[in-house]
Amino acid sequence: MKNCVIAQSGGPTSVINSSVMGLLSKNNELKVYDKVYAGLNGIEGILKEDLVDMNLLTEEEIETIKHTPSAALGSCRYKLKEYEDSKEEYKKLFEIFARHDIKAFFYAGGNDSQDTVRKLSAYAKDHNIDMNFIGIPKTVDNDLQVIDHAPGFGSAARYIAVSVLESYLDSMVYTNNGIFITETMGRDAGWLAASGALATYNGRRCADIVLLPEVPFDEEKFLSKVRKIYEEKGHVYIVASEGVRLADGSFLAATKAHAHDSFGHAQLGGAGNALKNIITESGITKRVKVLELSTLQRSAFHLASEVDLEEAFKLGERALLLARDGETGKVSILVRKSDEPYEVEYTATDASNIANHVKYMPLDMVTEDGMNITEEAMKYFRPLVGKLPEYRVIHHFHEK
Amino acid sequence: MKNCVIAQSGGPTSVINSSVMGLLSKNNELKVYDKVYAGLNGIEGILKEDLVDMNLLTEEEIETIKHTPSAALGSCRYKLKEYEDSKEEYKKLFEIFARHDIKAFFYAGGNDSQDTVRKLSAYAKDHNIDMNFIGIPKTVDNDLQVIDHAPGFGSAARYIAVSVLESYLDSMVYTNNGIFITETMGRDAGWLAASGALATYNGRRCADIVLLPEVPFDEEKFLSKVRKIYEEKGHVYIVASEGVRLADGSFLAATKAHAHDSFGHAQLGGAGNALKNIITESGITKRVKVLELSTLQRSAFHLASEVDLEEAFKLGERALLLARDGETGKVSILVRKSDEPYEVEYTATDASNIANHVKYMPLDMVTEDGMNITEEAMKYFRPLVGKLPEYRVIHHFHEK
Repeated sequence: MKNCVIAQSGGPTSVINSSVMGLLSKNNELKVYDKVYAGLNGIEGILKEDLVDMNLLTEEEIETIKHTPSAALGSCRYKLKEYEDSKEEYKKLFEIFARHDIKAFFYAGGNDSQDTVRKLSAYAKDHNIDMNFIGIPKTVDNDLQVIDHAPGFGSAARYIAVSVLESYLDSMVYTNNGIFITETMGRDAGWLAASGALATYNGRRCADIVLLPEVPFDEEKFLSKVRKIYEEKGHVYIVASEGVRLADGSFLAATKAHAHDSFGHAQLGGAGNALKNIITESGITKRVKVLELSTLQRSAFHLASEVDLEEAFKLGERALLLARDGETGKVSILVRKSDEPYEVEYTATDASNIANHVKYMPLDMVTEDGMNITEEAMKYFRPLVGKLPEYRVIHHFHEK
Repeated sequence: MKNCVIAQSGGPTSVINSSVMGLLSKNNELKVYDKVYAGLNGIEGILKEDLVDMNLLTEEEIETIKHTPSAALGSCRYKLKEYEDSKEEYKKLFEIFARHDIKAFFYAGGNDSQDTVRKLSAYAKDHNIDMNFIGIPKTVDNDLQVIDHAPGFGSAARYIAVSVLESYLDSMVYTNNGIFITETMGRDAGWLAASGALATYNGRRCADIVLLPEVPFDEEKFLSKVRKIYEEKGHVYIVASEGVRLADGSFLAATKAHAHDSFGHAQLGGAGNALKNIITESGITKRVKVLELSTLQRSAFHLASEVDLEEAFKLGERALLLARDGETGKVSILVRKSDEPYEVEYTATDASNIANHVKYMPLDMVTEDGMNITEEAMKYFRPLVGKLPEYRVIHHFHEK
């Protein structure tokens, strides 16, 4: 018997299950391993020997799970310690692997999970254990190094772009429309907020302003831009990352969200509400609405990007082949060959290159005033997100 | 020359443009009127003579506008006064109608708009003006009398049901998941919140609790139910209408949202945040997340219900026929003949039957404890929303 186990870790995405089903399907085809176990709730569940034999799944079930958001195997927020600090745990884990004839471990997750891959493969090498450890990347935040883009990101970006377009149309039906703020995820990196810039109506970008964690928030410049646009057309559409921060690195949400309501009480909230407070206090207008896209960004499978879904699947297939070919301590990744026509190449990198690093938005993707994304940068985003719906209205607003 | 004008009023929906395009297409076919004018921004724009000739639209443009959310003609929040209080305005409006040979006025909107239809048709009759005034219903809230359901509702309900399903799957991937609250629109009537009950996973309803404006909120009963479910499975999914209110009629959001944060400051918010405060103060758990679906409920065309889109179109077509047949002061409506197979009949009612009335959820649709919707009631909702995605996960959560 020669089996393998795959598990998921960290926040869910729309396509992380596609990666797992990619690996399972490829193994059904090539029979590299006798059994593919699902380790439920990541390392946490594997330590409890919570394993499910996925060979029992029918073709139809595989197809359904591939098209299911969240984390079909359950997830965990468990960070495996270094061997020196947690010897018993490593011993227990490898006893469980041995008891179930597990010769390969696959972990679908973000940079913490790739750190687990790095630690376990190093341990196995040091102890002459013949096992392969392969990572499969995922994160809606797109903040993983080396890989061109993380699976999960394209679908979240698509959800954001479509939601910006649709809420933009909704926000401008009156003759006096006020200001609309959409808050996206992305605590450290602005990739998700930047995706909001993809939404266009009649050839013009819906988002007048896009705020990223990478560009320190300058209240004066921000208010002056908001005021100018509001005076021009009575409407401003703002996309803001939850991670917008001040020059000293503190989160805007943690400082400016404590504005006071009419009773003299403080008002808490995220970056969107902080911006709302700043705008209303400035006297520009009291008509400010905030939309927090929340967890739907990572779970709205009904808007999954086709490219994202298929790439996630292939990265799972490729992970199996990497283990079969004797690789360990590696992550299945892709690099981009061309924007148009869009083309990627599947390859691998050491888990240490991804573990515990963060990929920020490069500042050359940001416009000079720091409050939007360059048109050139859109070439990076467009193929990941796919074609957006085309809408049309008759009223004059967009001509202003 | 014999022309007509159509305008939109009130909050946008995903399918209000379908009604306008239904009327336009039918007129293109039957040539009842020489020109179909769009009155931009409702009555407010018509009073400024802001008219656009829609006969210039191509078939392709009509198709695109039919599939566009928001209000393609622009909207207004303008409530026309009684004739006695606003004689000049009535005079001006009818002068504009006369100047453009307008013989029929169509108004797509909620109960305020149908009140405008009622007032204008009464004025025309009293002054021997040969014009037809016909209303086309719309509202995501579904709170219009007489009509079986309002166009716009099915699409909003579909958006809510899918969002509940997807955020439910996202909210239960860990072994300890906390409590998730989704807040829907519906200030007076619970139809939208009730739609959240349509979301099921593995044959079981996702929403453990559904709170409606029609059932006075009982904090003690609510907390006792939340506690029981949380102890059983470490997870509770709650759908709450923004209009949840106390026995004295005051909004929960206005009273209980003023809970205090760790700095002793009050925290403002909607019904969802009020419930979060109540739960965290009770000591059940601090892990409570709130999702406010906001304006995407009425603008997420990408999840429009097919039935809703087609019914809205037909109600527009039928409005034209009602005017052609000499009716005035009427609203184009539908009544339901059967749930399964789903069948409706198109008819008309006096605008006065819809104007200024509210259709609440009947209490026999609510479960005995007042905190969910009966299975029997789902027969009303299902055909309006259509088939929901079928998802599947492997982890054990749903077996608990």
